[in-house]
Amino acid sequence: MKRKVLVLHGPNLNLLGKREPQIYGTTSLEELHQQMTDLGLRIDLDLTFFQSNHEGKLIDQIHEAMGVYDGLIINPGAFTHYSYAIRDAIAGTQIPTVEVHISNIYQRESFRHQSVIAPVTIGQISGLGMFGYLAALYFLADYFKQG
Amino acid sequence: MKRKVLVLHGPNLNLLGKREPQIYGTTSLEELHQQMTDLGLRIDLDLTFFQSNHEGKLIDQIHEAMGVYDGLIINPGAFTHYSYAIRDAIAGTQIPTVEVHISNIYQRESFRHQSVIAPVTIGQISGLGMFGYLAALYFLADYFKQG
Amino acid sequence: MKRKVLVLHGPNLNLLGKREPQIYGTTSLEELHQQMTDLGLRIDLDLTFFQSNHEGKLIDQIHEAMGVYDGLIINPGAFTHYSYAIRDAIAGTQIPTVEVHISNIYQRESFRHQSVIAPVTIGQISGLGMFGYLAALYFLADYFKQG
Amino acid sequence: MKRKVLVLHGPNLNLLGKREPQIYGTTSLEELHQQMTDLGLRIDLDLTFFQSNHEGKLIDQIHEAMGVYDGLIINPGAFTHYSYAIRDAIAGTQIPTVEVHISNIYQRESFRHQSVIAPVTIGQISGLGMFGYLAALYFLADYFKQG
Amino acid sequence: MKRKVLVLHGPNLNLLGKREPQIYGTTSLEELHQQMTDLGLRIDLDLTFFQSNHEGKLIDQIHEAMGVYDGLIINPGAFTHYSYAIRDAIAGTQIPTVEVHISNIYQRESFRHQSVIAPVTIGQISGLGMFGYLAALYFLADYFKQG
Amino acid sequence: MKRKVLVLHGPNLNLLGKREPQIYGTTSLEELHQQMTDLGLRIDLDLTFFQSNHEGKLIDQIHEAMGVYDGLIINPGAFTHYSYAIRDAIAGTQIPTVEVHISNIYQRESFRHQSVIAPVTIGQISGLGMFGYLAALYFLADYFKQG
Amino acid sequence: MKRKVLVLHGPNLNLLGKREPQIYGTTSLEELHQQMTDLGLRIDLDLTFFQSNHEGKLIDQIHEAMGVYDGLIINPGAFTHYSYAIRDAIAGTQIPTVEVHISNIYQRESFRHQSVIAPVTIGQISGLGMFGYLAALYFLADYFKQG
Amino acid sequence: MKRKVLVLHGPNLNLLGKREPQIYGTTSLEELHQQMTDLGLRIDLDLTFFQSNHEGKLIDQIHEAMGVYDGLIINPGAFTHYSYAIRDAIAGTQIPTVEVHISNIYQRESFRHQSVIAPVTIGQISGLGMFGYLAALYFLADYFKQG
Amino acid sequence: MKRKVLVLHGPNLNLLGKREPQIYGTTSLEELHQQMTDLGLRIDLDLTFFQSNHEGKLIDQIHEAMGVYDGLIINPGAFTHYSYAIRDAIAGTQIPTVEVHISNIYQRESFRHQSVIAPVTIGQISGLGMFGYLAALYFLADYFKQG
Amino acid sequence: MKRKVLVLHGPNLNLLGKREPQIYGTTSLEELHQQMTDLGLRIDLDLTFFQSNHEGKLIDQIHEAMGVYDGLIINPGAFTHYSYAIRDAIAGTQIPTVEVHISNIYQRESFRHQSVIAPVTIGQISGLGMFGYLAALYFLADYFKQG
Amino acid sequence: MKRKVLVLHGPNLNLLGKREPQIYGTTSLEELHQQMTDLGLRIDLDLTFFQSNHEGKLIDQIHEAMGVYDGLIINPGAFTHYSYAIRDAIAGTQIPTVEVHISNIYQRESFRHQSVIAPVTIGQISGLGMFGYLAALYFLADYFKQG
Amino acid sequence: MKRKVLVLHGPNLNLLGKREPQIYGTTSLEELHQQMTDLGLRIDLDLTFFQSNHEGKLIDQIHEAMGVYDGLIINPGAFTHYSYAIRDAIAGTQIPTVEVHISNIYQRESFRHQSVIAPVTIGQISGLGMFGYLAALYFLADYFKQG
Repeated sequence: MKRKVLVLHGPNLNLLGKREPQIYGTTSLEELHQQMTDLGLRIDLDLTFFQSNHEGKLIDQIHEAMGVYDGLIINPGAFTHYSYAIRDAIAGTQIPTVEVHISNIYQRESFRHQSVIAPVTIGQISGLGMFGYLAALYFLADYFKQG
Repeated sequence: MKRKVLVLHGPNLNLLGKREPQIYGTTSLEELHQQMTDLGLRIDLDLTFFQSNHEGKLIDQIHEAMGVYDGLIINPGAFTHYSYAIRDAIAGTQIPTVEVHISNIYQRESFRHQSVIAPVTIGQISGLGMFGYLAALYFLADYFKQG
Repeated sequence: MKRKVLVLHGPNLNLLGKREPQIYGTTSLEELHQQMTDLGLRIDLDLTFFQSNHEGKLIDQIHEAMGVYDGLIINPGAFTHYSYAIRDAIAGTQIPTVEVHISNIYQRESFRHQSVIAPVTIGQISGLGMFGYLAALYFLADYFKQG
Repeated sequence: MKRKVLVLHGPNLNLLGKREPQIYGTTSLEELHQQMTDLGLRIDLDLTFFQSNHEGKLIDQIHEAMGVYDGLIINPGAFTHYSYAIRDAIAGTQIPTVEVHISNIYQRESFRHQSVIAPVTIGQISGLGMFGYLAALYFLADYFKQG
Repeated sequence: MKRKVLVLHGPNLNLLGKREPQIYGTTSLEELHQQMTDLGLRIDLDLTFFQSNHEGKLIDQIHEAMGVYDGLIINPGAFTHYSYAIRDAIAGTQIPTVEVHISNIYQRESFRHQSVIAPVTIGQISGLGMFGYLAALYFLADYFKQG
Repeated sequence: MKRKVLVLHGPNLNLLGKREPQIYGTTSLEELHQQMTDLGLRIDLDLTFFQSNHEGKLIDQIHEAMGVYDGLIINPGAFTHYSYAIRDAIAGTQIPTVEVHISNIYQRESFRHQSVIAPVTIGQISGLGMFGYLAALYFLADYFKQG
Repeated sequence: MKRKVLVLHGPNLNLLGKREPQIYGTTSLEELHQQMTDLGLRIDLDLTFFQSNHEGKLIDQIHEAMGVYDGLIINPGAFTHYSYAIRDAIAGTQIPTVEVHISNIYQRESFRHQSVIAPVTIGQISGLGMFGYLAALYFLADYFKQG
Repeated sequence: MKRKVLVLHGPNLNLLGKREPQIYGTTSLEELHQQMTDLGLRIDLDLTFFQSNHEGKLIDQIHEAMGVYDGLIINPGAFTHYSYAIRDAIAGTQIPTVEVHISNIYQRESFRHQSVIAPVTIGQISGLGMFGYLAALYFLADYFKQG
Repeated sequence: MKRKVLVLHGPNLNLLGKREPQIYGTTSLEELHQQMTDLGLRIDLDLTFFQSNHEGKLIDQIHEAMGVYDGLIINPGAFTHYSYAIRDAIAGTQIPTVEVHISNIYQRESFRHQSVIAPVTIGQISGLGMFGYLAALYFLADYFKQG
Repeated sequence: MKRKVLVLHGPNLNLLGKREPQIYGTTSLEELHQQMTDLGLRIDLDLTFFQSNHEGKLIDQIHEAMGVYDGLIINPGAFTHYSYAIRDAIAGTQIPTVEVHISNIYQRESFRHQSVIAPVTIGQISGLGMFGYLAALYFLADYFKQG
Repeated sequence: MKRKVLVLHGPNLNLLGKREPQIYGTTSLEELHQQMTDLGLRIDLDLTFFQSNHEGKLIDQIHEAMGVYDGLIINPGAFTHYSYAIRDAIAGTQIPTVEVHISNIYQRESFRHQSVIAPVTIGQISGLGMFGYLAALYFLADYFKQG
Repeated sequence: MKRKVLVLHGPNLNLLGKREPQIYGTTSLEELHQQMTDLGLRIDLDLTFFQSNHEGKLIDQIHEAMGVYDGLIINPGAFTHYSYAIRDAIAGTQIPTVEVHISNIYQRESFRHQSVIAPVTIGQISGLGMFGYLAALYFLADYFKQG
């Protein structure tokens, strides 16, 4: 049985490849999704993507994922640092979640050093660029096998 | 004349009864609304309910409540801890407001100990479970009589 | 069987109705007790009242309440903010306790925003005036039925 | 060539003229827009106005402004103090931005003393009432000439 | 008419003249009282003295002073630094109060640099030894004349 | 009647145009004064300029401005961050004051993020370069008309 | 000559053996006193015991101990964390004092990690259960021999 | 032999009686000096007065006082809160010094609660209005007798 | 050409599989090394392993890695939180480094939330168990290809 | 069966009796070991001693103690305040541990008031000089009997 | 060509040799200048000395040093800890500067541990007594050779 | 008699001249030693050098220096900021010590602004490059002459 994974991107990630390439690189969100889909096919994961600049829409999506998706990959963007509401959504739905940051948040402004979401995820990958998303997929594939 | 009260629920409260029952109990939001409506009938309060995971929709509702509702009961969920925008909406409309938390927020993670909203409400009830909402109704009924 | 509730008032609450009426209102402690007794009769709770400006006497009372009272309602007054000894007394006797504050402690000086006692109570009611005590009674009546 | 400026108002600014006039004055948002439009005509700026109580909608607007508008004027309301997502949107689109506050935020509650958005704007005007918006227009007109 | 002043000494001040003379000098509490009584006679103040190591007894005394005494002089001893209950008692009774410390509390351990009581007194005298009490008497005599 | 405005510059502003041009630009203080005088003529304000590296001389000037000048524009330079004495001078004389910073102080070292002076001014303009002074003049002209 | 030691127990220690046995064990205060008395006989120490929930009574006892007792053993209970008055009493009387905590206060809530009393004692024993009191006796016996 | 006392007033105290009378009263500096001189005559103290808004001039005066004056009375105004240079001047010259504040600095903005100068003075008088200066004179007269 | 990667394990990681399996799992260090070696063969990385409880030995190894290894993978164990010396070693040698933590350090004691080493690494993987090491290998393989 | 106890001394304790005798006394490490061995013989404990200035060697020793020793006594010296690695070693091996400090660490520099190791030990003895080690032995002997 | 160095002394350094000799030694400012001049002759530096208790005069001197002096040696005295204005003067003129403190500021009160000036100097010498000034001269002589 | 000085270098200083030359310059440790030895010959100091990345080895060296060396020069590298153990070693052996930093630690990351070692040294030299070591030698030569 193919496992389903929902990939959530928070605010401003729609600008990927356009915004501050010295920090976020030049790959666009679409190109990233293509890379992830390709890998999903190879390791038997069925992926859905969702990006929003609206905290509420991300929370709605997390709720709707209950009973539908087996895992979440989330890059909460700037919500990482203050959205206790997204944290509660993840904790409430209890879907296994991996947090991904493209840049190394520990090398940037001090407000980016704290993730209010990390305590309710399985783990966090930070600074490995687009590869971070692929690693999260590999991890979940492995996690589902063991679970 | 029957007084009108708007009951607002913030993010993740739609999961009530499903999410983390050891913290929030097993009563669903619908069952809570039924209990509140029953009490409203008895103490002559006309109730309307609104839940949203969107901060902006809650603010819009608070604005639209001006001139329509006589009182607010709000459980801001995780917005309790950072939504200065909801705080300003309550302060701006000046509708008498009671803040309710199902769990005792002072027994949980330290970020939950601070409410940025409490300073603009009449008062706060925390930790009394579903009863907290009923107490808020009793309070407002009494408050309207004295007002 | 009638449940017994001990109502404890901390320092300066004997001045109620005399002290700073713009904050605490004009109801005296005796009038409050009368209102509570009346309600207790209606909802089948047997009430005892005790006020002291002495932290030690409040602790002694809490100890003596063990095995005698089924519930506590406490307004610790200024002890709210530093009496870890009262906190330990409540935690040690494990009598179900509701904390009440007449004024909204979150609208006042910053030292009043922290309760060292709230983490060992079932819950806290703040800012609802004298009604807060009545709500605590309603809550305990309900709590005993379910317990 | 006429330069285009997008004027963004954050949460609760739709209440302008109604909410807390002792802080925000009695001019309504519409009247402010009229004053700004009048000035825009005189100094050759083409203005568009947008107000929202939704953080996500403000971010969407900022994104859509890329390639369309030459400058932004933003009064982020309460989002000033916590919306790192709006900060990232401004930083990401790199449209020259001026932050405006009607009241002097340094005279009010301490949480209003910090703007998380100011570090990514050209500058900030605080406390000059409606004139602050006009000054921002004058500034941008001048800035475009030099740019 | 002779004005009445209650002089309150907090914990450990009964040791005066015995305890740590390098900090508190060698005058005993009785000798201090004699000096104060002598001065009171000269400047027409009727003095009463009360020392206790019990916070509750000090609060009781402050309450009983209402309507009886025209002024308070208090050296709260170590209660200076944490007794919000004594602070509330002074604020509640609204008797004009002067706070006196024998030693200069700003030269000692950092916990002694903060007085939680000073904000509700008329003023504070620190470090002038026994003279501080006499200055407080002179001040109150003058204050009553002007009041 | 022509209104009189005193323009005060704090320490190191005499270096303007010479010091750190990447932060403060290349306009000299004299050129700025010429621009301001020109504008003053157009909008009917009579301007006087004073620069000093001495905190005391700035305070003296503010005192002497009482009864002579109708408004102050002050760029306190580094005194912005610690001169409570200048703050008290402005508060004491109660001349309407606008604080101006050439650079955006919220983009620089963290000690520059706090102004101890802003709470006693009408408002603050930061980061708009030389234009900030002109905006302050426009504002005061408008303010005097309404006052 | 037999040395005399006063053993002081602070608030809630009368509940020993009844309160939270997972933290404090099942030995009662009486049983502890018996163990201590037995050891006192063997190592030639004459013991007196005093427990109170009243800070003031503990201070009174410490004062009365001057010239009577050669050493103090104190478990200040929750007063450990805020009773600067007890600290001053010990410092003032200068009787050699050992502070004992049954539980390891460094494994519990963060407010329990700070003892305001430890700086005026000879030393502190924490977490060794009832043995801590016995160790304090052994220590004092040894200390008196060397003194 | 008549003792000599130098009375130093810091910034803005020249405005006394004119500035913020609700805080500082209506007595002018000249009237205060007259009152102090009168008292000086009676208690045999020779007084000199000096006010400056310049930190450096106050330091110069303190230096020049060495070997000339027997005591200092200083109201450092806003320098109280940051002038470590004045602190060092007092510590360096070792002239006995009393610090006086007209208003109760513990009732005002939090930055006024800390005196960096108090640790090097004999003591501090705060909140007793003009009387504080007279008390300082009485104290010094007494101090010189004992010294 | 095969790239060489040095895998460093900090203090207590030799206990892997034995120590606190509820946190660190049951895989031993040897088994982890076998898994990593297997993967290294497949993705053409030549691996060397080194574990030490000595900060100095880890620093020595990092120094010796210069010019020999193309990448580092480090799990600094408890040194993560205070070894600025290891941080400087990595920064000084400038070998591309990935930091790995088996457990989610953001779910544990607060001292574990800060990594003093992360700011000098490419990125950090936390909470993904043994998979974190494999992901680091995948990442480096990819990184070398692009570099 | 004789129980085995490993006694670990951290950095600089080899200087015992030579270094700062006003703080640490004049007993040398060898004399201490002799006293402990003598007591061990009497209470049937088999002791081994190890001192190192190397954090790594202490961790190695703790690891090697697993399965060999029944208890640890550790004076971590300055490592008390920052060696999370030693803390993890004790937590990982789960050997019952008592922490001993010769001086009262709560009377010294503030950095010495925090032990990062205490939370993973059974308890801590501070300030009782060499006796602290003997008390730890007595405790462990008792602890083994009950265990 | 002889290089010119300006030596600046901040407040209270005119008291050198008179003030607190246990901290600052017994050498007077004149004797120090003589020693420095002697060394200057030997290592070919032309020295000018300036001491002031006035922050503004020190800033004026630093400005006037532009284009005249090749290097600065400054002991800012207490201004070290708060004069951001002197910091800006040094940063603005960009004359190479060495900061000297006679006493070891890291052994004294905590407010002396921070220098707001050090970040804009080449380096700082603290605690080496008068030698610190000579070392600064040696350094600058060397620095000019290399520059 | 020739005085002996031990020069200690902490972690990563073996990389000198190789690591981050923009911070530390291009002189190697060997070249530095040669310069120091040359100067030592001229000013009659006998030098020994020791570098280690191991905190424990540095402590061992300091201990062994007792009775052998007359002075220490130490650049503790990153241990500056956390090695209380090295601090205790220096304090314990009481050998006169000068702390040297090549770079200006007050211009770098904030964790580098605090030296836990400075309070037990005679003084500190920071930011003067290799010259700092030479200045320390000059200082010690001078210090030994006066001592």
